[in-house]
Order: sequence, then structure tokens, then C-alpha cells
Amino acid sequence: MSKYWSKLAASLEPYVPGEQPKDRKYIKLNTNENPYPPSPRVTEAIRKAANESLKLYPDPNGDELRTTIATYYGLKKEQVFFGNGSDEVLAFSFMAFFDPDRPILFPDVTYSFYPVYAELFKISYKLINLNDDFTLPIEQFFRENGGIIFPNPNAPTGNVISLEEIEEILLHNQDQIVIIDEAYIDFGGESAVKLIDKYSNLLIIQTLSKSRCLAGLRVGLALGREELIKALDTIKNSINSYTLDRLALIGAAEAFRDDQYFQTSREKIIITREKVIGELRKIGFKVIPSKSNFVFISHPSVTAGEIYQELKEKSILVRYFKKPRIDNYLRVSIGSNEEMDVFLETVKRIVSQRT
Amino acid sequence: MSKYWSKLAASLEPYVPGEQPKDRKYIKLNTNENPYPPSPRVTEAIRKAANESLKLYPDPNGDELRTTIATYYGLKKEQVFFGNGSDEVLAFSFMAFFDPDRPILFPDVTYSFYPVYAELFKISYKLINLNDDFTLPIEQFFRENGGIIFPNPNAPTGNVISLEEIEEILLHNQDQIVIIDEAYIDFGGESAVKLIDKYSNLLIIQTLSKSRCLAGLRVGLALGREELIKALDTIKNSINSYTLDRLALIGAAEAFRDDQYFQTSREKIIITREKVIGELRKIGFKVIPSKSNFVFISHPSVTAGEIYQELKEKSILVRYFKKPRIDNYLRVSIGSNEEMDVFLETVKRIVSQRT
Repeated sequence: MSKYWSKLAASLEPYVPGEQPKDRKYIKLNTNENPYPPSPRVTEAIRKAANESLKLYPDPNGDELRTTIATYYGLKKEQVFFGNGSDEVLAFSFMAFFDPDRPILFPDVTYSFYPVYAELFKISYKLINLNDDFTLPIEQFFRENGGIIFPNPNAPTGNVISLEEIEEILLHNQDQIVIIDEAYIDFGGESAVKLIDKYSNLLIIQTLSKSRCLAGLRVGLALGREELIKALDTIKNSINSYTLDRLALIGAAEAFRDDQYFQTSREKIIITREKVIGELRKIGFKVIPSKSNFVFISHPSVTAGEIYQELKEKSILVRYFKKPRIDNYLRVSIGSNEEMDVFLETVKRIVSQRT
Repeated sequence: MSKYWSKLAASLEPYVPGEQPKDRKYIKLNTNENPYPPSPRVTEAIRKAANESLKLYPDPNGDELRTTIATYYGLKKEQVFFGNGSDEVLAFSFMAFFDPDRPILFPDVTYSFYPVYAELFKISYKLINLNDDFTLPIEQFFRENGGIIFPNPNAPTGNVISLEEIEEILLHNQDQIVIIDEAYIDFGGESAVKLIDKYSNLLIIQTLSKSRCLAGLRVGLALGREELIKALDTIKNSINSYTLDRLALIGAAEAFRDDQYFQTSREKIIITREKVIGELRKIGFKVIPSKSNFVFISHPSVTAGEIYQELKEKSILVRYFKKPRIDNYLRVSIGSNEEMDVFLETVKRIVSQRT
């Protein structure tokens, strides 16, 4: 830090993404990436677009991508926003919908970027404590607030709530925005997209990084009523006219067009997940019910810290959050069947040596 | 606007980028894009990178790109930051270095995104009035301030200041940061990069959108002392861990490696610019001396508004800012020789019809 830093920069504690050590090859089960490649149609479309046109700015409004996503979800183009990963969309949403003087609500165990955004934009917040089994006590959202945000499924627990519960939250908060972060929705939860026509206070945020195998392309999106999307555009156009490059715009649109590929690859993840959950329970792990592409697990006799460390030594990376309430849990992304077989065998050995 | 908008969103007047009408094909001289394609090595590298690896997150730190840029400029990797276009880098810089209660300084005629960032981040500012010939009265920066930012060459005028003048500004502001926005530096100005070792208060921002023919890839960068770069990383890591996708990271690095292509294409622009300036002066235009890839022009007897409109009808787009002091000027990007011939012929006809 130097005297040139703003007070803001000096006050921040940034988000720390999952580690990416470069010392050797790891089985990476720590950042919820998809083990399957993106649709071949996506990579082919990008290769074709890598041409002379890169000298020109992208369409600042990204009409083609907006229209493609709108068509996919049965919405209007004006109900779609996109950004540089769902993280950018989340950051813009904090600016577009939350005010510093009205505390927002989000769960105590949740995506750890929310408190970082709150600090950055000076938005005060109150934490909703999850139940002991990590389920969401939705009635805790029925109180005075300046806006609500939570992931569904929740991260890093994988727990999901139903559309009926979401409607209850929306109905109890008609004067506040309710932002549902659906980063992991395609792995078994039910999307709230169908509620957009019914609720003007609902904003949904999604990403192409998980279920569409495109973490490396950096595309996230928001869906909601036109008036909400306009607020996001106002923020975006006050920061950066063109947040997606030409290649990401084209690749993202093609990902939505190849629905068959999407359906097949997300189903593969779900099948592997269910198998992994069964195997983990057999060797004594507590596994939080998951509708996402990861499992959140804890062992009664071997600590999460030990398992994390031993797995890392065996070249398997999982995510270990040293945080209150979850410091004896590990978040394990669902990789390919082959990767998960290696993981299961290794973790079985670790656990049996210690018990 | 709806009741769900934050006070911030409701208060903003976003930046408006150059128009991109889709009704027909235009000669686009309105957004300072480069008429030449990017280096073939860049497009080839991107095509190769459009593969299975897109399922994985990019390197959040972008070490390879940082190292490549550092090597190019004779700096250390820790002295390089990059972002999603220089606009994002500028936005992050406003957050990283400016405080709301200490007014910053920038010229009254300058890049119109600066006041937008100031509004967004609640940074107060004082305008430095350019001289009548649009040159920068540098002694106006020798006063109490919370930081300084200006483009060199300035936009939309094209005027440049010398390294000696920059050093004077730096010396008079040793307790404040001085940010030099070098978006157009490669077209004839002298970069302040060589001053980084000498001044701890100097931050330089550049872009690959102009001189490196990559407006469609969205890559900007900042160069400065390690402590300044750390502040930018702190902001970035509080918003979005990965601001460049895998393709942009690889394409940008290759653009710096192919220096010969870069040198050739920027020289072509400079030669065309000088020719265009000569021709415009012949038909009575006042042309501000330009060291950028655009010219800022005014005609004594035909208004800028009229010329803009007639050019547009003839399928030529130039930029017309309806703003105080410059509402009788047009900013014309330097296109290819062929494009500029059409522009010159058309503008000659417009002017001769009216005089």
C-alpha cells in the first residue's frame, strides 16, 4: 500500500478465487469447472470469428446475443443483460439495485463474493443464518430490507429451494428487489425464469462457466423485467461500453443454440454426482443434498483440513474454506467419471488410514 | 426507471459510444478503430486457443500476458496490469486512486468518460480549461488536488504534450497520482513509460484497440510502480477475478510479440494522417495538430453539424460532439487510404457546394 491508494482501495479485502498452482498437473475439483469441453459448435464459431473483424469494436448492445438468449428462455430481448462473467453482472447489480443506507439480506454461508461487493460499494447487509442442516430459513427474508440476494442452489452447500418458496420470498418483498443467483441451477434445480412475467422485483443471474462448459470465455447474464435490465445497462454504460469481446459474444450465442449438447453434458454431471454421493456416504461422509455440480462434504473422524492437504499432495485439488460453520467441510466439484474414480479411491484410502 | 433502481443508478448519465447504425454499410470514421486487420499471428493464436481449454477458468493473474507486456516495455511483471479495455482500467483507476472528498483535475475538453466515472464513483473534480488552441496549460495542474488524469495525446483534439511537460506535472504533484491515458500514444507522441522508474506517482494507461488493431478483443493495460499496480489488483479482485477471457489473453500477448506488424501498421496510419491533414487544410479546414489516429477539424463557413449530417447521408460516419467549445468540430478517424480518399472527395463536394 502507498500514499497514492484511495481510502476505498486501502479498506478492501478482495475475493480469493480457487487456487491454480502451476507446479504440476492436478485433478482440479476446486473451482466448479465442467470436466467436459464446450460444444464443438462453440469452438468452431469462435475460430471462424477470429478474423479481420477484430479490428472493430463489438456491438455495444450485443443485440444478437441478447436475442438468442431471449429466444431460448421465451423472453424479450429487452429482458436480457449480459456481462463479463456472472461476477461482473453481480457487481453491476449491487450498484444498480442496492443503496448504502438500506441493509440488504443474504445468507451467512453463501457465495463469498457478496460481502466483498458490499464492502466495495459500501452497501450495509444483515446475514440470514442458515439452519443447522444448511437449509435456508426463508421466513427470515420476511422483514424490512433494502434488497435480497442468494444463490439457488446455494454455494458452497449445493442446497436448493423450490419455486414455491421463491414465490413466497417475492410476495413478501414486493417493494424490494430479489436477486437469485442461478449459477448452478442447470444441475437439478428449477429456474425461476418462468416467474419473471409474474414478478417485477425478480432478477435472475446465470453464468456460462458451469453448465455450458465455458469458464474460460467469461460470460454471465441477467434476466428480468425490462426496467431492471435498463438499470444494469445504465451501470454498464457508465463503466465500459463493451464488456464482451467479439469472440465471447459469438461463442456464447452458439452455446445457447446447441441445446442438445448442453442437455447431454449436464445430465452426465448429474449422473456422476449421484454416484459420487452414494460412494462418499458409504465411507462415512456426511454429504449435503446437492443440486449443483459440486458436493459439500464432511467426515466425522477426519478433519476437512487434513483431507484437503492429503488430496493436494496426491495432486487432487478441492476447495477448503477456512470459515466459521464450514471449516470442517470440503467443496468437491464433479469432474469426469475417471477423475471422480481417482478422487474416490484416494479419499477412501485417506479415511481408512485414519479411522 | 422503477422503484427498484438504486439512487446511484437513477442519478447516472451514461457514456454514449460512437453510433453503430445497422441500416447499411458505412465508412466508419467515428470510433477511432484501426482500418488494418490485427496481426495474422494474433488471429492464428486465437484460432489455436479456441479449444477444449475454454472449459477452464483463465489464469486469474494473467501472468503470461503481464510478463509479455513487461518484457516489451522493459518493466517488471509486477508493474503491469490489464483489463477489459482501457475503459475498465480507467474505471478501476478512479476507484483505486481517487477519494470523493479531494477534487481531481482533468481538462474541460477531454475523453467524455472521465466525468461519467467521476459521477459514478462520487469523485468531485475541477476542470482545467484548455487554451483557445486546445493546448494544455500545464501550469494549471500545479495546485492542490486529489489526483490528475488526462489523455496524451488528448481526445478528441489530438494534441500532444512533451515528456518534459509531463515531468513538470509529476514534479509539482509528488503527493498525488498523475494518470496519463495513452490510448493514442503510438501514433506520434512519446510515451511516458520511460519515466516510471523515476516517478512513483505516475500511472500510464494504454489500449490495444487503436494502434494494435484489436478494438474487438477488449484489452487495455496500466503500467506503473508495483505499489500502484497492487491497488488496481485489489479493486479488480473485489469485482471480477477474471476480466479477460482465455482468447483475449492469448491474442493480446501475441500482439505484443509481433512488433514488426505493429510498427508497419501504425506508420501507415501516420502517413495517411499527414496526407489527410494537408488536403483538409487546402479546402479551408482548421485542423488541430494531431499525433493520434484521428483529426479534429472545423470549417470556417460550413458548420460541423451540417457536414456530419451530409457525410452520414453519403454513408460516411464521423464523430460530432454537441458540446460546449467543440460544437463546431468533427473528429474524423484515420481510415485506409481508400476510405480517406472517399471521405476527402465527399467533404470537398460538401464544402464547395456551400461556399
